[in-house]
Amino acid sequence: MDEYKKAEILIEALPYICKFHDQKFVIKYGGHAMVNEQAKNWIAKDMVLLKYVGINPIIVHGGGPEINRAMEKMGKVPEFIHGLRVTDEETLEIVKMVLIGKINGDIVSKLEQYGGKSVGLSGKSGQLIKARKKIQYLIRDNEKIEVDLGMVGEVERVDTKLVDILVEKKYIPVISPIGVDEQNKDLNLNADIAAGDIAGAMNAEKLIMVTDVDGIMDDINDPKTLHRKLTISQIEKMIEKGIITGGMIPKIEACINALNKGVQSVHIVNGKIPHAVLLEIFTEEGIGTMILKD
Amino acid sequence: MDEYKKAEILIEALPYICKFHDQKFVIKYGGHAMVNEQAKNWIAKDMVLLKYVGINPIIVHGGGPEINRAMEKMGKVPEFIHGLRVTDEETLEIVKMVLIGKINGDIVSKLEQYGGKSVGLSGKSGQLIKARKKIQYLIRDNEKIEVDLGMVGEVERVDTKLVDILVEKKYIPVISPIGVDEQNKDLNLNADIAAGDIAGAMNAEKLIMVTDVDGIMDDINDPKTLHRKLTISQIEKMIEKGIITGGMIPKIEACINALNKGVQSVHIVNGKIPHAVLLEIFTEEGIGTMILKD
Amino acid sequence: MDEYKKAEILIEALPYICKFHDQKFVIKYGGHAMVNEQAKNWIAKDMVLLKYVGINPIIVHGGGPEINRAMEKMGKVPEFIHGLRVTDEETLEIVKMVLIGKINGDIVSKLEQYGGKSVGLSGKSGQLIKARKKIQYLIRDNEKIEVDLGMVGEVERVDTKLVDILVEKKYIPVISPIGVDEQNKDLNLNADIAAGDIAGAMNAEKLIMVTDVDGIMDDINDPKTLHRKLTISQIEKMIEKGIITGGMIPKIEACINALNKGVQSVHIVNGKIPHAVLLEIFTEEGIGTMILKD
Amino acid sequence: MDEYKKAEILIEALPYICKFHDQKFVIKYGGHAMVNEQAKNWIAKDMVLLKYVGINPIIVHGGGPEINRAMEKMGKVPEFIHGLRVTDEETLEIVKMVLIGKINGDIVSKLEQYGGKSVGLSGKSGQLIKARKKIQYLIRDNEKIEVDLGMVGEVERVDTKLVDILVEKKYIPVISPIGVDEQNKDLNLNADIAAGDIAGAMNAEKLIMVTDVDGIMDDINDPKTLHRKLTISQIEKMIEKGIITGGMIPKIEACINALNKGVQSVHIVNGKIPHAVLLEIFTEEGIGTMILKD
Amino acid sequence: MDEYKKAEILIEALPYICKFHDQKFVIKYGGHAMVNEQAKNWIAKDMVLLKYVGINPIIVHGGGPEINRAMEKMGKVPEFIHGLRVTDEETLEIVKMVLIGKINGDIVSKLEQYGGKSVGLSGKSGQLIKARKKIQYLIRDNEKIEVDLGMVGEVERVDTKLVDILVEKKYIPVISPIGVDEQNKDLNLNADIAAGDIAGAMNAEKLIMVTDVDGIMDDINDPKTLHRKLTISQIEKMIEKGIITGGMIPKIEACINALNKGVQSVHIVNGKIPHAVLLEIFTEEGIGTMILKD
Amino acid sequence: MDEYKKAEILIEALPYICKFHDQKFVIKYGGHAMVNEQAKNWIAKDMVLLKYVGINPIIVHGGGPEINRAMEKMGKVPEFIHGLRVTDEETLEIVKMVLIGKINGDIVSKLEQYGGKSVGLSGKSGQLIKARKKIQYLIRDNEKIEVDLGMVGEVERVDTKLVDILVEKKYIPVISPIGVDEQNKDLNLNADIAAGDIAGAMNAEKLIMVTDVDGIMDDINDPKTLHRKLTISQIEKMIEKGIITGGMIPKIEACINALNKGVQSVHIVNGKIPHAVLLEIFTEEGIGTMILKD
Repeated sequence: MDEYKKAEILIEALPYICKFHDQKFVIKYGGHAMVNEQAKNWIAKDMVLLKYVGINPIIVHGGGPEINRAMEKMGKVPEFIHGLRVTDEETLEIVKMVLIGKINGDIVSKLEQYGGKSVGLSGKSGQLIKARKKIQYLIRDNEKIEVDLGMVGEVERVDTKLVDILVEKKYIPVISPIGVDEQNKDLNLNADIAAGDIAGAMNAEKLIMVTDVDGIMDDINDPKTLHRKLTISQIEKMIEKGIITGGMIPKIEACINALNKGVQSVHIVNGKIPHAVLLEIFTEEGIGTMILKD
Repeated sequence: MDEYKKAEILIEALPYICKFHDQKFVIKYGGHAMVNEQAKNWIAKDMVLLKYVGINPIIVHGGGPEINRAMEKMGKVPEFIHGLRVTDEETLEIVKMVLIGKINGDIVSKLEQYGGKSVGLSGKSGQLIKARKKIQYLIRDNEKIEVDLGMVGEVERVDTKLVDILVEKKYIPVISPIGVDEQNKDLNLNADIAAGDIAGAMNAEKLIMVTDVDGIMDDINDPKTLHRKLTISQIEKMIEKGIITGGMIPKIEACINALNKGVQSVHIVNGKIPHAVLLEIFTEEGIGTMILKD
Repeated sequence: MDEYKKAEILIEALPYICKFHDQKFVIKYGGHAMVNEQAKNWIAKDMVLLKYVGINPIIVHGGGPEINRAMEKMGKVPEFIHGLRVTDEETLEIVKMVLIGKINGDIVSKLEQYGGKSVGLSGKSGQLIKARKKIQYLIRDNEKIEVDLGMVGEVERVDTKLVDILVEKKYIPVISPIGVDEQNKDLNLNADIAAGDIAGAMNAEKLIMVTDVDGIMDDINDPKTLHRKLTISQIEKMIEKGIITGGMIPKIEACINALNKGVQSVHIVNGKIPHAVLLEIFTEEGIGTMILKD
Repeated sequence: MDEYKKAEILIEALPYICKFHDQKFVIKYGGHAMVNEQAKNWIAKDMVLLKYVGINPIIVHGGGPEINRAMEKMGKVPEFIHGLRVTDEETLEIVKMVLIGKINGDIVSKLEQYGGKSVGLSGKSGQLIKARKKIQYLIRDNEKIEVDLGMVGEVERVDTKLVDILVEKKYIPVISPIGVDEQNKDLNLNADIAAGDIAGAMNAEKLIMVTDVDGIMDDINDPKTLHRKLTISQIEKMIEKGIITGGMIPKIEACINALNKGVQSVHIVNGKIPHAVLLEIFTEEGIGTMILKD
Repeated sequence: MDEYKKAEILIEALPYICKFHDQKFVIKYGGHAMVNEQAKNWIAKDMVLLKYVGINPIIVHGGGPEINRAMEKMGKVPEFIHGLRVTDEETLEIVKMVLIGKINGDIVSKLEQYGGKSVGLSGKSGQLIKARKKIQYLIRDNEKIEVDLGMVGEVERVDTKLVDILVEKKYIPVISPIGVDEQNKDLNLNADIAAGDIAGAMNAEKLIMVTDVDGIMDDINDPKTLHRKLTISQIEKMIEKGIITGGMIPKIEACINALNKGVQSVHIVNGKIPHAVLLEIFTEEGIGTMILKD
Repeated sequence: MDEYKKAEILIEALPYICKFHDQKFVIKYGGHAMVNEQAKNWIAKDMVLLKYVGINPIIVHGGGPEINRAMEKMGKVPEFIHGLRVTDEETLEIVKMVLIGKINGDIVSKLEQYGGKSVGLSGKSGQLIKARKKIQYLIRDNEKIEVDLGMVGEVERVDTKLVDILVEKKYIPVISPIGVDEQNKDLNLNADIAAGDIAGAMNAEKLIMVTDVDGIMDDINDPKTLHRKLTISQIEKMIEKGIITGGMIPKIEACINALNKGVQSVHIVNGKIPHAVLLEIFTEEGIGTMILKD
């Protein structure tokens, strides 16, 4: 391809750069989307480019598979209820060590490697995430019973001051989803939901969920059935009809949570596609599914 | 071309964006390079893109052909000595009306149309360009004689305060090369030289001369003879050898002036090539000629 | 006159200086009031003095007679409907060249000559004046018909950001009344009305119309009939009674427009009187006509 | 006199206003120059006008006659050695009560009355004036003997921070010349000398001594012998020749002190002349004596 | 006592330091509480410590006994009506000289001696206290008659700008309760009431009245009857019942005034107890009486 | 102990609070000094108190014992050469997980629990610590041989920008000693030495080493032999004489490194003593050993 074509492609991005200038995008990233070095590099470069062109990415990451591996190495069996990890004291320690001590730092390093300035944080710093123990109910034998998930929490309040300072000073914050309760105990948070809560508190324009699927599809095996754009009510109907099922449902609930917290649009993109975030933001069609309020 | 390729091209620009972040580039633009609407659009988009990705363009424009046309319409014959326009009172008025009243505003409008914030200025505002009458000598019959060019000046001092404020507030300044002397009389300035003086005063990293030739070539008819990179001393030898001649010489002198005023590199690019400025800055090879100090 | 008297006169200005400290005054100036060098000097000195004593003048200028002269030189016949210049493409070009390329710069130069810092602007810079094509109606044979004035506009929105920055940084902005429409086409604006719109948007305390008459008089030939102070409703009655007629009516409408946009008082003064603006502001009686809301 | 003349006089002040913009002037004022209400009003108005036109007056006041009166009322006899008040504990208390508790507040009130914002200070606040006990020598019978003046000090160090803050926030500081020594004891300072020390520390452009004489004259009874401008060396010769004698000598020494501390010019003016300070600053000739370095 | 204990005591203060961080406390201090050097030192050190640990003390002082002494020295007999000093012209002069010229400066000096930065002010500076003449009524023979207290005022408006600047710049303001009326005449203010007005205007968290009694007691001779905490309505009942009587009543009214002006709590402490202010603020129980709204 | 004594103790701290106001103290803390919850609470409270009284603590922590425990749990045997941990890839992962993922967060939580605002960082964020692989030599059989410690580094450059921002915004930074090399690989750093490098780069006044010994003693079993104050040359003699030996030597070298990097004084204190840091800073004698340059 000749150079002239390249310049035109840069210029094609201009309207998007103008439109999103100075806005905040929360990027939920991690776990299943972090399959290999290459995928990690793609997303890191996308983040740095966004920052340089005047858009402010804030990264919230998960790390389920790596936590599982670490637990197994220590002879513990991961256990989930409704997609939430049952978290005893020892598990919580492993979760924090893997998320904060490993994955967070790896993301920070990649960002700095490609020219970004980045700061790793957990919800423990600067009162970032105040949480409370999550009360989970199950229906068993037509009875609603409370199950104890252990040290699992839900976000109570996000104090954006620290992140605001860092964003303003040109850093890309990378946040591990650990919260702190009133008794100063740490709590393990679901990264998808925490990302939505943070996006809402930060007045983010977009929440972008980097996953390992292309988006919401009528038939998961047929890429042609991918929906480019959906509203909450359309999605609710798809759940009713059984089109959206299983593990996708908690993720969808996290998306709806974000929209209800004030985020303008939520995007589901596939991290295995090169530069999926850029393609979603900087092209007319996008490549994943965009979800809006009705 | 598929979308994935596009994203990669955006990402290829990242190292250049990082490298030139927050720097100032003075772009000399106008006259022969402003051949048609399309060329004007290309350069306007390039400028806006630069601004959005954190590079600060400052535009200095000329307008020779349009001034000639306006003069002819009023029954005046343009006259040049050593590439400088002989400028009587009436000519000066026409020069100002065309430069400030027409071309400057056209450039500003294009920039705003593509999403930039721009302010048109002449050297008259905010003490921007203090000038003095230029004394021009000619050699005739082996005698050095002084010729009176009329209201033609050379830059004495550039007060960068106003431009600094505007750049910092995210505007793209567009400057018409009219200076003011100690008696508050306006003087017509050569745009190439003024651009170099402004670039030096602003501590600009680069001066980019947008012209109607591809750069410095050994044989003007053979694009393969284009020099990608030259130093002042190499250029001086090319002048001695008669490779660079005629109308190119004053332009080359303006380039050397800029380097001597502290600019890191001067670039000559062809405005008739789409997005020539982007290509010169954001590709390894560039497309024109880069001139450096020895 | 002895020096002691002089000092007392300076001191007499003190209460006015205190009262108007840090306020913004929009000065509409130009055209018929710019009769000679001396008148231009008077007003320039007044503006610089205001700026130095802590009052912020913002100048909006016209230039009808000079535009007419330039048009005639080019063999075009100026044509007006209801006081608005019919403006074809070629006329618009002449309007811009004369206003922006000539008159604006002359005012800037005078201000800088007397120690002020000034920046020339048109409505094209920094989204200053967004305009729309003006729809003009005429009554002919008892029928309301629409006439096409060509590229004539009315102000839709004033973005004060650029002017605010310049005022705060101690510059005196000088604005040519050219607006830009949604399609990025330039439009010729009536300077009187534009000045009122700008004054309203800037939260200016006063709009001062520098004209070639002493103010509003019952009998234009008898200076003793000058009104010092009038309200909108008094003026409306004078129009009904036929005391105010002809060319004064559009100017009066511009004054009322300004008051409706939030300006506290509008003043009509005669630019042929030395230092008319100072006298109007810094003396008890004033010398022209002050117009207030009821 | 007609209004037009008045406006011209305002305009005549413009070059001086430009020239002295944003500079600091220390005004020594008080004692013999504060003869009546009218004189106090004149100077207060002059100060407020200076402030409003962008010049920053800093007032240092004395109060000899009022201190004498207060002492006499309390049955104490004022005693001076070489122009310095012998100051025992009780005298110091009276000095502070009169200077800080009475005169300082009177000046502040006048300034506020005429529209200024003013803050009364003594050298005790914010480490403003650190002083040390003054060692005074006398020659008696050809022997140099040390005399104890009691609580009399000389300035050791001026901390300008507090005054800088107030000046920047648009207040006119009024300073009583009381200093504090290392043991935190108050010391009575000579106001003339303290004013020079403060002017030097503040990088003041001018020190203006408001006195009860017209300036330095060859013959004190012949106003025509007034010197408009003198240098230090010219003054030293006048002292040698016996033209300057007696009580004037300490004041002259204070002037020379100020020039040596970096003040550009010192002015002696007569506070009994209406608006003496304005006349000295805003007219070509001035009305008192200006003293410069050689 | 060993060092370890000392560190623990410092740490015990931490919750109070956190709780009151960046808040403003107005301290009414003076007169009867300023019995000796030691008491003055205690309170000065307390103020400086508060400032350094991030709490902002603003001192308002009285000076009744010293004013009485000065008056007697000058042969004048102090006279009070309802606790307010009858103030003729000569008395006002003495009041100002003692308060501003003596006591204020003494407090400033002590604060600076212990490492604080302090500025002495009266209500005359920077429009700090605008006052109006107080109209006082007496009931005599069942008739309400107006008595003329002379130059006695009550606070009309407090302009906090100057004090805000000084507090922000880390100074401790010390304010003498002299106000200025519309005619720019000084007025003598009751220090207790003025302190409440200033506290209200400054949005102070606390007003601390440093007096010469331990607080509000059922039996003034029995320390065990001291009330630690009272509400306005409880106090009103104590007045009804005759438990609070005499000279205490105006002080109590000043406390209630402060609470009504928005202060969160008022504290009465005994300045003769070492570091009474610290003890009241930094211990659970406190040592005086805290008064709250109901 | 009565309350009055308590207040006096607070006041005794005042001169130290004044003296160290706005200074930065780097606190090296961790590992052997973090023996139990109580010790962790003591130091956390000390840090928060310092921050509130205007001193800026910056914490650098180690974690040797906890890393050893984690390694052993995973079946790895810790190995040290010259006090430096031999660090293979797997060990580095464990080091990061324990330091960043566990200890750092625990310290942050304690600080927030006691009212501080804190941010956990590693040298990976914001280019904080650029490091290079450490080349370690051993003398074996009289030959100097290079040993490979694996991923162990030494500090090359500290970029203080991020920490400066956080300190200025009132956060207490807590730093894990992990550096990044030119190839963006993480390196394990010795916490003592890194603390000294950070203290030097931050222009810290003091480096305080919180350890598990009382300081430098002639006889480690006799507290009476503790040195209160030593200079570098005195210490060097003690090493020569064999008084300081073994594991203390690397720590001492880290102290000397800090002094050479510009720190004014280094303190060794025993973290098992309650509030050891406060006692060292806020008492005349201190409780540990202070080391100064000669």
